[in-house]
Amino acid sequence: MSNITTEQMRFWSPSVRELEPYVPGEQPKIQNLLKLNTNENPYPPSPKVVAAVQAVLVDSADALRLYPDPDATALKQAIAKQQHVEVSHVFVGNGSDEVLAHIFKAFFVQDKPILYPDITYSFYPVYSQFFEISTQTKILPLNDDFEINVEDYKQPNGGIIITNPNAPTSIALGLEAIEQVLLANPDSVVVIDEAYVDFGAISAVNLVEKYDNLVVCQTTSKSRSLAGLRVGFAIAQPHLIAALEAVKNSFNSYPIDRFAIAAAVASFEDQEYFEAQCQKVIETREKLTADLEEIGFKVLPSKANFIFASLASKDAAELAKQLRERGIIVRYFNKPRINQFLRITIGTDAQNQRLVDTLKNDILV
Amino acid sequence: MSNITTEQMRFWSPSVRELEPYVPGEQPKIQNLLKLNTNENPYPPSPKVVAAVQAVLVDSADALRLYPDPDATALKQAIAKQQHVEVSHVFVGNGSDEVLAHIFKAFFVQDKPILYPDITYSFYPVYSQFFEISTQTKILPLNDDFEINVEDYKQPNGGIIITNPNAPTSIALGLEAIEQVLLANPDSVVVIDEAYVDFGAISAVNLVEKYDNLVVCQTTSKSRSLAGLRVGFAIAQPHLIAALEAVKNSFNSYPIDRFAIAAAVASFEDQEYFEAQCQKVIETREKLTADLEEIGFKVLPSKANFIFASLASKDAAELAKQLRERGIIVRYFNKPRINQFLRITIGTDAQNQRLVDTLKNDILV
Repeated sequence: MSNITTEQMRFWSPSVRELEPYVPGEQPKIQNLLKLNTNENPYPPSPKVVAAVQAVLVDSADALRLYPDPDATALKQAIAKQQHVEVSHVFVGNGSDEVLAHIFKAFFVQDKPILYPDITYSFYPVYSQFFEISTQTKILPLNDDFEINVEDYKQPNGGIIITNPNAPTSIALGLEAIEQVLLANPDSVVVIDEAYVDFGAISAVNLVEKYDNLVVCQTTSKSRSLAGLRVGFAIAQPHLIAALEAVKNSFNSYPIDRFAIAAAVASFEDQEYFEAQCQKVIETREKLTADLEEIGFKVLPSKANFIFASLASKDAAELAKQLRERGIIVRYFNKPRINQFLRITIGTDAQNQRLVDTLKNDILV
Repeated sequence: MSNITTEQMRFWSPSVRELEPYVPGEQPKIQNLLKLNTNENPYPPSPKVVAAVQAVLVDSADALRLYPDPDATALKQAIAKQQHVEVSHVFVGNGSDEVLAHIFKAFFVQDKPILYPDITYSFYPVYSQFFEISTQTKILPLNDDFEINVEDYKQPNGGIIITNPNAPTSIALGLEAIEQVLLANPDSVVVIDEAYVDFGAISAVNLVEKYDNLVVCQTTSKSRSLAGLRVGFAIAQPHLIAALEAVKNSFNSYPIDRFAIAAAVASFEDQEYFEAQCQKVIETREKLTADLEEIGFKVLPSKANFIFASLASKDAAELAKQLRERGIIVRYFNKPRINQFLRITIGTDAQNQRLVDTLKNDILV
């Protein structure tokens, strides 16, 4: 925005002049690039997803002229079935980022501060600024092992959001700890952002019936290999879903298109494929972790489809740069406490091997 | 929301408790229904759209696991080419409703009131409430012929939005009038919402180079038969596009999915099909208008893919009800000044004939 004059800035809403937008991991178009920077799944989506989109083209291409179902009922039904909840407990949106934005608007615009950890998904402070609640935000440091201290979440607040497993640390929080937070905050909404939960952590969805203040948010982008589609969802009791629907219907009536609905439904219906792919990622993660530890990395215990790793002998920014020069991109955050770590997405075995070989035989020799 | 208790409501953000969400036209699943209620195009999209999605499935289904281009550059390029503007002048979003929401946030959250007509797209007051600027909104009555009085828009304001052609009136405003509004408001953003412009009105896109305060918003949902896809766009000078990008990147980094990008690109590249379909709708509209006038309707002069019509001899709500009982749905707004009108989407000749026959031989006998 540096080339915009002060005079031109008069057109912007004053609050928008202050925004510091989220910066997504880059999506470069480089040949033979090994892209381990945005936590995408290394495996393709279920073949049934492709077949479902094919069926839309064959059976109902004409229907593209018609609006999609504004409630995406077929999708809510497929999610409800797979998650073992009632359809009335499901909210869907255009990627979990949109779902999270609606969550901030629906629950967190309060007089009391919202609480989240110092190291977490970097979109949260952006939403806070967007909805003008930054000054009411209380950021709570993780402990030295990058774990949440549950006691911190027992103070007056207007809402809590916890990523589980956390990003970019990859560390999972147990359900017992989450229940403690829920019990300590009967008048606040507690959001558990489970973008990475399917890679070995335990979901809080089973707690939704028990706690009227719990919202669980998930996405199809990671464990279902559908980042290209933009489908996220939230599970909660109907009085919370209703707030999300009120927000959604005050912003965009039809957020999910016909292809995305059909494709995501097919994905939720193919449980077997889903479980097999997640298991592959988990196994590959364990191997990569061992390989990196062998060449001197410290790797945090991951329950996600990425690892968070550091090397005492080498500056992380420099390491990221050298990997990049060799066609491998990982995510580096130039932020306090984590500026000596790299966030590395789990690739296929062959991709991980290329990473390990490059480190071992080229960069760290 | 009536079944939510006051106690449960404590979880909602106070401002969200007051929201009155937009109510989209219904999308019922009834056999043999004639759906003339949501201004969808009666013709399918270009065959090249279907081919483009097919190509995604064949060539790059694996890429569904990867995020789409967050900037949707290919789509911006296709729009820029078709609209004869620079790529830097294009903003894209998940349907024009999302683009409009971002426009309200980017420009209209001001100390001074925003201005729009009393009869216009009913989502505007919803956005105003969403972004908490309702109290700063000044609603200006159209004249007795449902036309805008340009002089009304020469008062202090924090932004102006005009639908052209207007909805649900279908009446177009000339570029001269729009230029008067632009010239009278050098310090406010003037938004021209052109959802229906391709059916015979004149676009203000050609004025974008001349006016640094103009934003033109369009959609692929109507004239490109892609309501099922959710792609909208705005054209403006780069200092205004930058505000929209800042808002978008503070809300959702990847709003348009891979299928929607590919399909919309193909649509913008098929200018010939686009022009032919628009021309068909225009011709059919003129015939339907004449037929309805013949059986006693007053029809406002339409430049849209719908008409706004009233019948002195019959209550409009009752007429909508009777049409519905015969499998034909049109849009009825129970609002002051327009509660004796029906908004009727232009169908194919055969569909319009069914409407006229039903009125002539069944309802009005």
